[in-house]
Amino acid sequence: MFFHTKELQYNAKPSNPDPVYAKKLQEILGGQFGEMSVMMQYLFQGWNCRADEKYKDMILDIGTEEIAHVEMIATMIAQLLDGAPAREQDEAAKDPAVEAVLGGMNPQHAIVSGLGATPTDSVGYPWNARYTVASGNLLADFRANLNAESQGRLQVVRLYEMTTDPGVRDMLSFLIARDTMHQNQWMAAIEELEQNQKAIVPSTFPQALEKQEVSYSFMNFSNGEESSQGRWASGKSMDGLGNFEYIAQPQAMGQIPKLNPSPAYMHGTTMPGQVIPGMDQANFEENQPNNDLH
Amino acid sequence: MFFHTKELQYNAKPSNPDPVYAKKLQEILGGQFGEMSVMMQYLFQGWNCRADEKYKDMILDIGTEEIAHVEMIATMIAQLLDGAPAREQDEAAKDPAVEAVLGGMNPQHAIVSGLGATPTDSVGYPWNARYTVASGNLLADFRANLNAESQGRLQVVRLYEMTTDPGVRDMLSFLIARDTMHQNQWMAAIEELEQNQKAIVPSTFPQALEKQEVSYSFMNFSNGEESSQGRWASGKSMDGLGNFEYIAQPQAMGQIPKLNPSPAYMHGTTMPGQVIPGMDQANFEENQPNNDLH
Amino acid sequence: MFFHTKELQYNAKPSNPDPVYAKKLQEILGGQFGEMSVMMQYLFQGWNCRADEKYKDMILDIGTEEIAHVEMIATMIAQLLDGAPAREQDEAAKDPAVEAVLGGMNPQHAIVSGLGATPTDSVGYPWNARYTVASGNLLADFRANLNAESQGRLQVVRLYEMTTDPGVRDMLSFLIARDTMHQNQWMAAIEELEQNQKAIVPSTFPQALEKQEVSYSFMNFSNGEESSQGRWASGKSMDGLGNFEYIAQPQAMGQIPKLNPSPAYMHGTTMPGQVIPGMDQANFEENQPNNDLH
Amino acid sequence: MFFHTKELQYNAKPSNPDPVYAKKLQEILGGQFGEMSVMMQYLFQGWNCRADEKYKDMILDIGTEEIAHVEMIATMIAQLLDGAPAREQDEAAKDPAVEAVLGGMNPQHAIVSGLGATPTDSVGYPWNARYTVASGNLLADFRANLNAESQGRLQVVRLYEMTTDPGVRDMLSFLIARDTMHQNQWMAAIEELEQNQKAIVPSTFPQALEKQEVSYSFMNFSNGEESSQGRWASGKSMDGLGNFEYIAQPQAMGQIPKLNPSPAYMHGTTMPGQVIPGMDQANFEENQPNNDLH
Amino acid sequence: MFFHTKELQYNAKPSNPDPVYAKKLQEILGGQFGEMSVMMQYLFQGWNCRADEKYKDMILDIGTEEIAHVEMIATMIAQLLDGAPAREQDEAAKDPAVEAVLGGMNPQHAIVSGLGATPTDSVGYPWNARYTVASGNLLADFRANLNAESQGRLQVVRLYEMTTDPGVRDMLSFLIARDTMHQNQWMAAIEELEQNQKAIVPSTFPQALEKQEVSYSFMNFSNGEESSQGRWASGKSMDGLGNFEYIAQPQAMGQIPKLNPSPAYMHGTTMPGQVIPGMDQANFEENQPNNDLH
Amino acid sequence: MFFHTKELQYNAKPSNPDPVYAKKLQEILGGQFGEMSVMMQYLFQGWNCRADEKYKDMILDIGTEEIAHVEMIATMIAQLLDGAPAREQDEAAKDPAVEAVLGGMNPQHAIVSGLGATPTDSVGYPWNARYTVASGNLLADFRANLNAESQGRLQVVRLYEMTTDPGVRDMLSFLIARDTMHQNQWMAAIEELEQNQKAIVPSTFPQALEKQEVSYSFMNFSNGEESSQGRWASGKSMDGLGNFEYIAQPQAMGQIPKLNPSPAYMHGTTMPGQVIPGMDQANFEENQPNNDLH
Repeated sequence: MFFHTKELQYNAKPSNPDPVYAKKLQEILGGQFGEMSVMMQYLFQGWNCRADEKYKDMILDIGTEEIAHVEMIATMIAQLLDGAPAREQDEAAKDPAVEAVLGGMNPQHAIVSGLGATPTDSVGYPWNARYTVASGNLLADFRANLNAESQGRLQVVRLYEMTTDPGVRDMLSFLIARDTMHQNQWMAAIEELEQNQKAIVPSTFPQALEKQEVSYSFMNFSNGEESSQGRWASGKSMDGLGNFEYIAQPQAMGQIPKLNPSPAYMHGTTMPGQVIPGMDQANFEENQPNNDLH
Repeated sequence: MFFHTKELQYNAKPSNPDPVYAKKLQEILGGQFGEMSVMMQYLFQGWNCRADEKYKDMILDIGTEEIAHVEMIATMIAQLLDGAPAREQDEAAKDPAVEAVLGGMNPQHAIVSGLGATPTDSVGYPWNARYTVASGNLLADFRANLNAESQGRLQVVRLYEMTTDPGVRDMLSFLIARDTMHQNQWMAAIEELEQNQKAIVPSTFPQALEKQEVSYSFMNFSNGEESSQGRWASGKSMDGLGNFEYIAQPQAMGQIPKLNPSPAYMHGTTMPGQVIPGMDQANFEENQPNNDLH
Repeated sequence: MFFHTKELQYNAKPSNPDPVYAKKLQEILGGQFGEMSVMMQYLFQGWNCRADEKYKDMILDIGTEEIAHVEMIATMIAQLLDGAPAREQDEAAKDPAVEAVLGGMNPQHAIVSGLGATPTDSVGYPWNARYTVASGNLLADFRANLNAESQGRLQVVRLYEMTTDPGVRDMLSFLIARDTMHQNQWMAAIEELEQNQKAIVPSTFPQALEKQEVSYSFMNFSNGEESSQGRWASGKSMDGLGNFEYIAQPQAMGQIPKLNPSPAYMHGTTMPGQVIPGMDQANFEENQPNNDLH
Repeated sequence: MFFHTKELQYNAKPSNPDPVYAKKLQEILGGQFGEMSVMMQYLFQGWNCRADEKYKDMILDIGTEEIAHVEMIATMIAQLLDGAPAREQDEAAKDPAVEAVLGGMNPQHAIVSGLGATPTDSVGYPWNARYTVASGNLLADFRANLNAESQGRLQVVRLYEMTTDPGVRDMLSFLIARDTMHQNQWMAAIEELEQNQKAIVPSTFPQALEKQEVSYSFMNFSNGEESSQGRWASGKSMDGLGNFEYIAQPQAMGQIPKLNPSPAYMHGTTMPGQVIPGMDQANFEENQPNNDLH
Repeated sequence: MFFHTKELQYNAKPSNPDPVYAKKLQEILGGQFGEMSVMMQYLFQGWNCRADEKYKDMILDIGTEEIAHVEMIATMIAQLLDGAPAREQDEAAKDPAVEAVLGGMNPQHAIVSGLGATPTDSVGYPWNARYTVASGNLLADFRANLNAESQGRLQVVRLYEMTTDPGVRDMLSFLIARDTMHQNQWMAAIEELEQNQKAIVPSTFPQALEKQEVSYSFMNFSNGEESSQGRWASGKSMDGLGNFEYIAQPQAMGQIPKLNPSPAYMHGTTMPGQVIPGMDQANFEENQPNNDLH
Repeated sequence: MFFHTKELQYNAKPSNPDPVYAKKLQEILGGQFGEMSVMMQYLFQGWNCRADEKYKDMILDIGTEEIAHVEMIATMIAQLLDGAPAREQDEAAKDPAVEAVLGGMNPQHAIVSGLGATPTDSVGYPWNARYTVASGNLLADFRANLNAESQGRLQVVRLYEMTTDPGVRDMLSFLIARDTMHQNQWMAAIEELEQNQKAIVPSTFPQALEKQEVSYSFMNFSNGEESSQGRWASGKSMDGLGNFEYIAQPQAMGQIPKLNPSPAYMHGTTMPGQVIPGMDQANFEENQPNNDLH
């Protein structure tokens, strides 16, 4: 169960309205790696958590914090939209600066939400739940989380560069700091889990069952061998169980595929002379009066 | 530019058709973490790569390999669908086993693709490009890649458990091994990049500009303090630049938000007695005959 | 800012696992009118609210409650999936009952979420933000909310009928009761707003500016006049400002549309003899060597 | 069956082309509450209607009218796009006014539709069928319809404010008037149905089966009690069957959820020392040579 | 403007309810090539038509017919769902046949639409407007239409094979016949347009401006030359303006791409020693106290 | 299996950066008819191909070529974005030209992809797999392919008109030429298949089973008879098996639909006096204490 506190977690007050920037800021609200994504991702990971209580609690702590981040950014966007020139006025229409603002705004901020934040990204694409990950395997999911916080902090930093408004930058500096913490947090949790199990997810699958000849081979599918110069192409593998090998000219190990013709009732392509299973042309014609094909 | 070789990278031949399993196998073809996702993710990361050639080459090597994985799984699915009982026959309809197959199949495998693989997941949801990540920051993206290979291998392993068909398992054992390599590969690449820059993405943002008071604080937003027991709650931070701190009772640091009323031309909610900017009721009425509101 | 309490708002414990029912229950979690929709809808309405504080507070109260409903249903689904027979076992495969369960489950509950709830509906379609409404006009939005609670309670009732599990029914009886309250709540809020403004949304648009000849006319666009028998076809209009009128044979009042040909650089359809603006055939040919069309 | 009349229901002729406004006008064609939504919503409600013929007829009357509204707006958009400067010309490129138009247009209006209307909203997002509601319960659906007409009229009014083109405003004044009627119509139909059944949807579920202790309680999940000041917090409930009650400090009534570990074949997170059902480590290893896990 | 006639264009009466088949039949209602697609595609092509009136009229004739097809199939589905066993009953639950029906049904047919048709396909995916095509070039669009009617008739035929219900087959036999006509119709319209312009769309682009060396070359990008055996690999080209040529070993004609590093404010990957435009490390540090990066 | 060659198939080098044009160019990369669509469409058609090897080989040849086209356009877009003014600078902000660029750019090109191409269209909508067609019937699919190449070439030509950059035009002139070939190629393949089977897809359905009275009738559903003037309204049908007939006043041939009331457990609309199957009001009340409705 949840409770709401009226104060925001941190200040969210722009120094000036800026409807064009409001459109861009939507990316970290409702984009692929916006706050809605981490909020829903962490909440679902927490609710589905079948591991130790300390993980469930930790995940729900951060999930609950993220709701507050969504709240801050939504509040900021609503204020950035204050007084947006969404009405056509004869005089203003002649001013190219006003026109540029009108052109650069997200029109739905005026028509649909009435100068409110929308659960969409910076091109107006609505948030959807396929942005989230909750697999039931915490090591896998903590890697998803580390990625989400990395992409997220990168985007916030880019947005920080795109404005000089002190109020906006103040809020962003808070979010950037929290993302510093959250990257650290997931790195710590990953380290802890990797000490309890193998580094390769899932660690419970017996490696004897995988095709081990190719478990540590880097395959060079482009001409040129620049890719041989990296850590991934030689030396001990990262899981400590093998050695990287560089395959300069990988060979196909499988068959040339040849599919059977589909049965007659599929009405696929018929080649002249091809025998289709179940397609007996004489019988085919005769059965027609029965209003049943075969 | 690309060239195609007719042989598959590895065998993709089921021992028996199994249309119900074909539906499930679609997950690793066209699902969020299926082969189409890593194929497109790596290709776009490679094409957009602005870093050293060895990274671009490496990323495109693996991207090109993933096209071959899509090919293998698509080929496998088409064969699993061979002879699917997609036609109603009076006798068969009485057989509950046949009925169960009909009920468990993806109907689009019969109606839409004519017993072919579809670019969709195990519930028939089409693949879309928001599954991919290419941010221009390789450390961020390699974390996305490590996550993708972790989720991917987990799903392949689960599908391995869901069949006993030796041919299917043979192919999956190959994919599992390649995912072992690919997790290792991205771990190696991450390690290499972290040696050249700080661990926190993006490493180029001056930390002095973030709100450093909260850069290493774990905030406890649930009742109970189980979350204090993890590596993330105390000790040196993972980036080596701070110490984790556990905030048992986090306080709000921001304002109680209060938004201005929207301008009259937005036609938002009007409260009795509320003064709306630009809304001059007398003037409002007078101007109506001009067919222009204000 | 938000806080989490570990106890659920109400019990969410099934008497028995039931993976097929888990799939159906997803509808009221991540469907068009599931709890995720009202949760996000109310939170955004609250954060964007520019009206009196009592409305903002009320909306955020219910929005915060809905997070708890999402939590309850997610928790219920995870338990309904307990021990789902997601692995192929030779013996079980011969049992049609097990096969039916396997066929009726959402395969992503096994492959993707590892027996956890997913932010999707009963056919596996992911939740998306276009399910929500927050227009900046509270009367409009409260009608959206009344609709959401009506559709929602209807779906919960239908799901109540689809199970006999006492634990599931216990949780659903709580949700049904809350939806009774929530329908009442929005009806009350609507009544209050309608006393402050006109019933037609938005109430601030001067009716003199609309084409008033057709403001109260019911138009009969089907043969037959059964539609004349309703309250909407005669008598005082509901806003008290007009009288309903039944137009048995509505007439077209507009032009026969005739569009201009598109300019030459659009490369639309060219009719023989048609004069296209900007398309001067002689000039067209001559300019080709300049590598520029016109 | 349907017939088409060449004349439009009302005039749809702009006084001047305006490609930037064409982009905005798309919202009420293909947006969440655009005319395509009400058209498809009413048609499906009508076709699925299992109630009295007068309802079916009424719903299909209005559904058929809405096709004509889609036609009018599509026609208007095509004309607003007439002569859009979609081609790069050296001279024009230097004119910031032309550039602003180019930047403000929807590029698909030129590249994809060749200066025609598209079935998308004002940010280019395609219309989809999850915008519609047809539940089989007319009271629920009429509330959906009243909401749709409220949101719709609000958006048309906002678009009216965003232009001064007399031709566009003329068409919009017609649509606004029809939406006045349609809000009145659904209010009338709702009143009629509420007289035949209880106001709470669905009225056929026995209230004794719901958890009646919470059927009329407003729960205050935020600090502060501003929400107690509304009609929803005290007095007779709107359905006349109870009294509103304000719960200032709502208590959790449910369990602290604790999920079982998932079975071994799910390969979820394994905690050290945790006993996983079906995971017998010794046996686990032994079975590997059989190429079958268990 | 449109009018509705109560009679269906053709009979739509199943001989028996069949909820599992109802799910499948949704494909031709709300699928990629279902009747909703052609209905909306033709209506938008008609409304946007800038060519001779006979084309606009023809397109709107068929578009109007397709609304009637949507109506027929929706009506059929609602009847196929009659009496669907959507409620759990203790006795029935033990019957595997009932269970199979429950498993095979689309759960939304019960929970969401209350035994009505839904605007979705056979896996429950909602119809969306990206299924439609209206480019402003009729020859291009008529090819889209011929494709739609080809895919559509194929799917209807497959659905005909999947049932033996005489009532359903009767309706399908009508739709199949209309699709025969509609394929013929678009072929005729294509032939007519190709007589007025060149066969290659768009015919108005001066061929001198295209890279003509590769305008008629078939390039063999797979090993093996089976593809040389077709009509496309030799002989006169279909537009009569060239000769097909088979390139057994196509060569790359372009550069090896090398992208510039991104500017510092993008925070992309930084390579050791790499000079980033605008990134002056000394200056970078100094400016930090100004709370502005550069 | 696939191999990558570092050289591009053709040059992809702009003469100058142009971030606004980069946004538009996305249409032919990730739009409905962009190169990603034909790439995935041809690859899936090839992998699923059950016909003669020469078709499979041919389809995969062109599918492999299309990967190279995606690569070229992605590379071009990344270069067009070089040095995009994505950072706010006080001086530049005052320059309306810079502002226009900022407003016209896709914000995700800066925030999300860091100046790289994205797998989206010109309005930022992500590519999805419902853009592709692979039905198992090659004649149907080759018509889809001919349409895709027609729409595609039309869009490339329009984009050619929208720029004067010689480098961009050079690349586009190559793509236009290849689309000339590809339209020719599919026309050739269609001709070949039509010589082996009937022109109407699918050719294997016995025409005796369709409702042949309406197989060649053009039905006039609009007032006015302009549509009678086309090739489709009279003369021999295109399949050579009938004669076109013009039905000036088409008549309904079906029933007036009347649906049964839904069962009580669906909780649909209840009309006063209506008898609902299974709804016995007396019994209804009595059973309530049993916590089970009926």
